[in-house]
Amino acid sequence: MADYRQAGVDLAGHDALIAHIAERAAEAAQPGLLRGVGLFAGAFQLGDGPDDPVLCATTDSVGTKVLLAAQLGGHEVIGQDVVIHCANDVVTLGAEPIFFLDYLAVHTLDNEWVEGILAGIAKACRQAGCALLGGETAQMPDLYQPGSYDLAGTMVGTVRRQKLVEPCGVVGDVVVALPSSGLHTNGFSLVRRILRDRGVDLSRHRDTLLVPSALYSPDVLRLLRDGVSVHGMAHITGGGIGGNLNRVLSPVCDARIDPTAWERPSVFGWLQELGAVSEDEMRRVFNLGVGFCLIVPPTEVAAVTARRPDARVIGALVPGSGKVVFAC
Amino acid sequence: MADYRQAGVDLAGHDALIAHIAERAAEAAQPGLLRGVGLFAGAFQLGDGPDDPVLCATTDSVGTKVLLAAQLGGHEVIGQDVVIHCANDVVTLGAEPIFFLDYLAVHTLDNEWVEGILAGIAKACRQAGCALLGGETAQMPDLYQPGSYDLAGTMVGTVRRQKLVEPCGVVGDVVVALPSSGLHTNGFSLVRRILRDRGVDLSRHRDTLLVPSALYSPDVLRLLRDGVSVHGMAHITGGGIGGNLNRVLSPVCDARIDPTAWERPSVFGWLQELGAVSEDEMRRVFNLGVGFCLIVPPTEVAAVTARRPDARVIGALVPGSGKVVFAC
Repeated sequence: MADYRQAGVDLAGHDALIAHIAERAAEAAQPGLLRGVGLFAGAFQLGDGPDDPVLCATTDSVGTKVLLAAQLGGHEVIGQDVVIHCANDVVTLGAEPIFFLDYLAVHTLDNEWVEGILAGIAKACRQAGCALLGGETAQMPDLYQPGSYDLAGTMVGTVRRQKLVEPCGVVGDVVVALPSSGLHTNGFSLVRRILRDRGVDLSRHRDTLLVPSALYSPDVLRLLRDGVSVHGMAHITGGGIGGNLNRVLSPVCDARIDPTAWERPSVFGWLQELGAVSEDEMRRVFNLGVGFCLIVPPTEVAAVTARRPDARVIGALVPGSGKVVFAC
Repeated sequence: MADYRQAGVDLAGHDALIAHIAERAAEAAQPGLLRGVGLFAGAFQLGDGPDDPVLCATTDSVGTKVLLAAQLGGHEVIGQDVVIHCANDVVTLGAEPIFFLDYLAVHTLDNEWVEGILAGIAKACRQAGCALLGGETAQMPDLYQPGSYDLAGTMVGTVRRQKLVEPCGVVGDVVVALPSSGLHTNGFSLVRRILRDRGVDLSRHRDTLLVPSALYSPDVLRLLRDGVSVHGMAHITGGGIGGNLNRVLSPVCDARIDPTAWERPSVFGWLQELGAVSEDEMRRVFNLGVGFCLIVPPTEVAAVTARRPDARVIGALVPGSGKVVFAC
């Protein structure tokens, strides 16, 4: 039975590290700091008036999806993914993405795939409405294997102070899910291990494995501009629904999620069966078809589904202690 | 004779890539974009009034200095370096660093050195006066070798629109150099190759090789606040004085640099002799003791040296075509 720790990824160690980074970050706090390490994006205010801008920023990478892209050719997807991932992070605070910077680390420059990555970055920046402000391309032949590379990026967004979305969900609110396009960028160390262990011919599954992540920021920003009341948002990445939605729950609420309330894309069933992955591990590693969650009062569901007919109510906030629980 | 291309780093290919990235970035331009790819930092304005903030942002990495740090132990230095490098970049536009995000990619989490890196990041954020807003730690056992890691970061700074430093040097201006602390973070692929080829015992030279970069932003910001007129600034990184100072020259000026005008730290002579590196290659790869350049009218030199007695006039702007020329 495959799991993520065997695939070399230590999620518990990672959580402990985040707590430690938060301590270190506290040593370097500054007056404008509103939200530091631990949420989907940090927030820094440039003034203290209600209309003054708050900057929201996040850094993220594409993970080992880059290794599959290197094998199968899919560099434009990787470029899109890094921008989309970061845009989905900053919009959880209500912020509009304004500019992006990329970090590309390579063994040696190879024009064909660098071109693909850049084309993907530029394409997704246009979709997210942000400028490509700069970046760094580092050639490090002794750190990276020939033909391999790593890609990360940073998105900065802005929101007026009074429009910053603060998590404020209460019992009775519902959880509305926006569908993912598939794996997005998470769980690929496990995916690759399963496929390798089972000797799967990767090239036959390229279109299933290398799908660009879904971009949520344009629709979410439209909902906010339309005045829809949103009590919190979660971008579902590594850690799954349980490990991301919990970041915007109050300590007196649980989110009770009905795992039958949405259709799970077939890629997840296929991987689960191939790797004999437990249901708990699936939930802990993958988005399972839910890429983004909004916590809203029940009265706002119609406004969300009017804009996004593919949105689904998948759960509700109940009295609890800040956990996500799965129950039909 | 060692050179940088043999060490696996293609500076000419990198320059061509930057031009290509600039084209791609133009496809994703947005109204607020003031400066895109190609300078030390990008600039994005949040409003168009003279007092409205301009955001200046840069992403950079520490390069293969991380490999020496992994061998010799010096992770705190690496953490400091990534912050300092980025702070020195954004201050070239007159911007004050406000927050930093790091990207740390690892084989597996190792608390001892992650702790060192974080301590260095937090220390340098305090020195630069910026918040540590967030970051990403990615575990990718199939992309990185055991015990190795990569570290990059993004700094965002702000400056009022009317205080943004626009390159505007004219013939007769002088170039004032602030000393580097040694190698900073550039040229380490060549350094490591020379040391390996010569069988040098690295541990005997740890204190020479793993010195934190010099941080210039606090002193430069004080000069600007004091009203010193600055016509352009260059952070001297990969590419040396010639490949960085040229980025802030007008197309009708050359910077004529006197290579005898400052004392070259002994590490450069040692490496040059060990590796039989040509003088041209030394100038193209290393900072040679000059970490930061200010272009100022001659009347402002006294104000700079009053704040920084270690500053040296190393050249002047002469009629030309935007090049840096070395001549006694």
